[in-house]
Amino acid sequence: MGGSALPESARADLAALLGTDNVLLDPDERLGRASGLSYLDLLRARAGDEAVPVPDAVLLPADPEQVQSVLDVCLRHDVGVVPFGGGTSVVGGVAAVRGDKAAVVALDLVRLDELVSVDPVSRIAVLQAGVRGPEAERLLAAHGFTLGHVPQSFERATIGGFAATRSAGQASSGYGRFEEMVAGVRLATPKGEWRLGVAPASAAGPDLRQLAVGSEGALGVITEVALRVRPLPEQRYYEGWVVDGWAAGAAAVRKLAQEHALADVTRLSDVDETTVSFALNAGWQTTALRAYLAARGIRNPCLLIVGWEGEVARRRGRTRAMLRRAGARRIGTTLGDSWRRGRFSGPRQRDALMELGVCVETLETAAYWSNLAELHEAVRTALVASLGRAIVMCHVSHAYETGASLYFTVLASRDGTDPIGQWQRAKAAASEAITGLGTISHHHAVGVDHAPYLSAEIGRIGVDVLRAAKTAVDPTGILNPGKLLA
Amino acid sequence: MGGSALPESARADLAALLGTDNVLLDPDERLGRASGLSYLDLLRARAGDEAVPVPDAVLLPADPEQVQSVLDVCLRHDVGVVPFGGGTSVVGGVAAVRGDKAAVVALDLVRLDELVSVDPVSRIAVLQAGVRGPEAERLLAAHGFTLGHVPQSFERATIGGFAATRSAGQASSGYGRFEEMVAGVRLATPKGEWRLGVAPASAAGPDLRQLAVGSEGALGVITEVALRVRPLPEQRYYEGWVVDGWAAGAAAVRKLAQEHALADVTRLSDVDETTVSFALNAGWQTTALRAYLAARGIRNPCLLIVGWEGEVARRRGRTRAMLRRAGARRIGTTLGDSWRRGRFSGPRQRDALMELGVCVETLETAAYWSNLAELHEAVRTALVASLGRAIVMCHVSHAYETGASLYFTVLASRDGTDPIGQWQRAKAAASEAITGLGTISHHHAVGVDHAPYLSAEIGRIGVDVLRAAKTAVDPTGILNPGKLLA
Repeated sequence: MGGSALPESARADLAALLGTDNVLLDPDERLGRASGLSYLDLLRARAGDEAVPVPDAVLLPADPEQVQSVLDVCLRHDVGVVPFGGGTSVVGGVAAVRGDKAAVVALDLVRLDELVSVDPVSRIAVLQAGVRGPEAERLLAAHGFTLGHVPQSFERATIGGFAATRSAGQASSGYGRFEEMVAGVRLATPKGEWRLGVAPASAAGPDLRQLAVGSEGALGVITEVALRVRPLPEQRYYEGWVVDGWAAGAAAVRKLAQEHALADVTRLSDVDETTVSFALNAGWQTTALRAYLAARGIRNPCLLIVGWEGEVARRRGRTRAMLRRAGARRIGTTLGDSWRRGRFSGPRQRDALMELGVCVETLETAAYWSNLAELHEAVRTALVASLGRAIVMCHVSHAYETGASLYFTVLASRDGTDPIGQWQRAKAAASEAITGLGTISHHHAVGVDHAPYLSAEIGRIGVDVLRAAKTAVDPTGILNPGKLLA
Repeated sequence: MGGSALPESARADLAALLGTDNVLLDPDERLGRASGLSYLDLLRARAGDEAVPVPDAVLLPADPEQVQSVLDVCLRHDVGVVPFGGGTSVVGGVAAVRGDKAAVVALDLVRLDELVSVDPVSRIAVLQAGVRGPEAERLLAAHGFTLGHVPQSFERATIGGFAATRSAGQASSGYGRFEEMVAGVRLATPKGEWRLGVAPASAAGPDLRQLAVGSEGALGVITEVALRVRPLPEQRYYEGWVVDGWAAGAAAVRKLAQEHALADVTRLSDVDETTVSFALNAGWQTTALRAYLAARGIRNPCLLIVGWEGEVARRRGRTRAMLRRAGARRIGTTLGDSWRRGRFSGPRQRDALMELGVCVETLETAAYWSNLAELHEAVRTALVASLGRAIVMCHVSHAYETGASLYFTVLASRDGTDPIGQWQRAKAAASEAITGLGTISHHHAVGVDHAPYLSAEIGRIGVDVLRAAKTAVDPTGILNPGKLLA
């Protein structure tokens, strides 16, 4: 890692603005904001890769006004700005890419940690961008509310990051995707502050909130988000079901989605993921469980976790009846509860597996129902063809009337000589398989990694439109260089 | 009305492309596509106003490919293009504004009348842009499906128009707003064809479908829309309730929305609209009805129409119980049914009233719940202050967890000398009252009339972003000049 390339004049202006303590030049601080949590990020960090770009400074603005002032200073000095929230991006979203800039700073929003307001009548809360998932829940709980937004990154990720990446939580069937919660957005841009959101719905032209949401720091730095909140659930109830085979499972989930009978959490594992889930969660009882299921005609079990929050009793009966009609078998609450307890542990398990020399990563997509089986098979085939012997597991975690997400977890033996190239090739193969059948990302966003696939999805014109929107707010391109748009 | 200013070379190219029969220069044909159905449109038409701009030709392309070719020709000849669907705009959305163009054509999509495909698994149907509401329902019903999109313009308006204007139907609480039904869009633009929509939800950058939806012909001509469809409802059931006072009524609807207990149709009239509704629908029984209600403590009745489509029995009990707890009184199915039968007759009633010398128009907005009472009062006050003696009626027809729409109907004595100025002043007063409290349009769109208010709502930066997006797809500005962006 080299020294900071931040020009002294820029540093002085930023220090005058934020205070010297809030302009960090320390190498460890800068390294700590240099990358996210993808497998490649971790591989490179382990290797102490000197080629990984590191921001030239870490800025810690105190509030939205200071964020705006930071942009004004960076615009004047032509310094790139990478917004940094929880640092949990798995697509290179916080990589310190310089683009055509001589220097780039990480704009850490950690100090924007306030609940700005709560409107209990409209059920809207305004949260600053740097509030992390658990803190958001704690702040809202004091008013009797919850967001109900619980992605795997929940413990570290921030409100601004959720909005910038169109995050989807594990209870998205009940609480909606993050963009569905967004009533308003406040952004800092090189052209000044931009506020959106005056009504729940509008026909006053295109919905620009849906342009701000998912803009990944490339169209502005999100400083505050007005969010639809819901009453804290009095009850939570999770249980496990088993369906015979992936096709039957997907059909059952589709039926629930199309009949508006989805539980708030609805998560269907394929056969391979179910095998691992049983081993991890049912332990020595797995054999007995398999025998029990086989005696009931379920030879290719697919685990389905369903969970309700809030009004459990009123809704559970209808969902259960539909699952029974679909041939599913209830297997009690043990697997549901153990999934819920362990649902943030994936990243930690990954660290342990990496220690053991395993290539381990996840990737995700979504498609319309009629493409889902083909997409599932195409991605599996592509990954296995690229990685050789590999375990590829998959689940549906977000279902809609018209389609669903697919979330893949891949385990393979790590290539000792070229581990980075090994995964890059596998990821490229999977991405090619996705293109034309589904979206390149259902909830991980674009970042650096998916940018090459964006034009296949939204068209050359779509990319031109995004680039034009970016140029309108950021004519010199200081905002998150190299992200979203390749 | 002057002659056609379409250059002969352009006419020849268009005739070569579409056939002479599909390039209409006849004055009546052109006049028939010169405006929409706002009160001002009708006033001007009655006055035979020579100043109303008329398109220089009416084009009748046969399919999306021909629409694209028409744009190519018009780009070459620098001719403006106004997409024309049902012609039901009430905001000047189809006005033949020339902008900086020497000639402008109306692109009538009437021949794009096909159901392109139905995917019963994903429950997605692709419809061409020119299909009108009733025909869309007829085509889908043959496959057992419905859109459930029934705005007041239903009988004439088109799929393309619904998408271009972010239309909301009367059953939006059940079926959603039109933009929520849109899975994909195909547009013709001066830069070529643009297709969007590969998955129900995505984190692959901003949702550009939500930029295309509401773009009002300014970012492209919508030629096909992929739409989420639902099974045809086996039952429909509508009934009337009465609540004591607007505040209690709004609180009851808010409760239903926030508890996810809204009926598919939920329509709350204020006291003044209820008075007229009773008179029109209950006729000579009104006095008895009022006495019945007064005996039960309801002195300021506000009529609430609720209607379910599809699964009536399962859902009705919960909604009814909540309404009872809110102090509402059920008054049977007569008013509900009569509202449903008469729901498209508003425009015809308006024609009759105009004959009688009445100034009659509607306008609409939406806001978060905590602003709704103030917005209701502010718009009423502004209209009465501007018009003098006027009847201002209002209803909520679309409710959300965070807020609701307000739909105003205004009746006043027409100013004989300056009827146009009379309404322009009243509309300006209402629009000023809306600004800062709600959206300038919940489902009528921007067109010409609301364009001056857009920057107050989405910011100067929002307007710049839209203009940049437009320039990216339409650098010479041939697409619907003067609409959306002032």
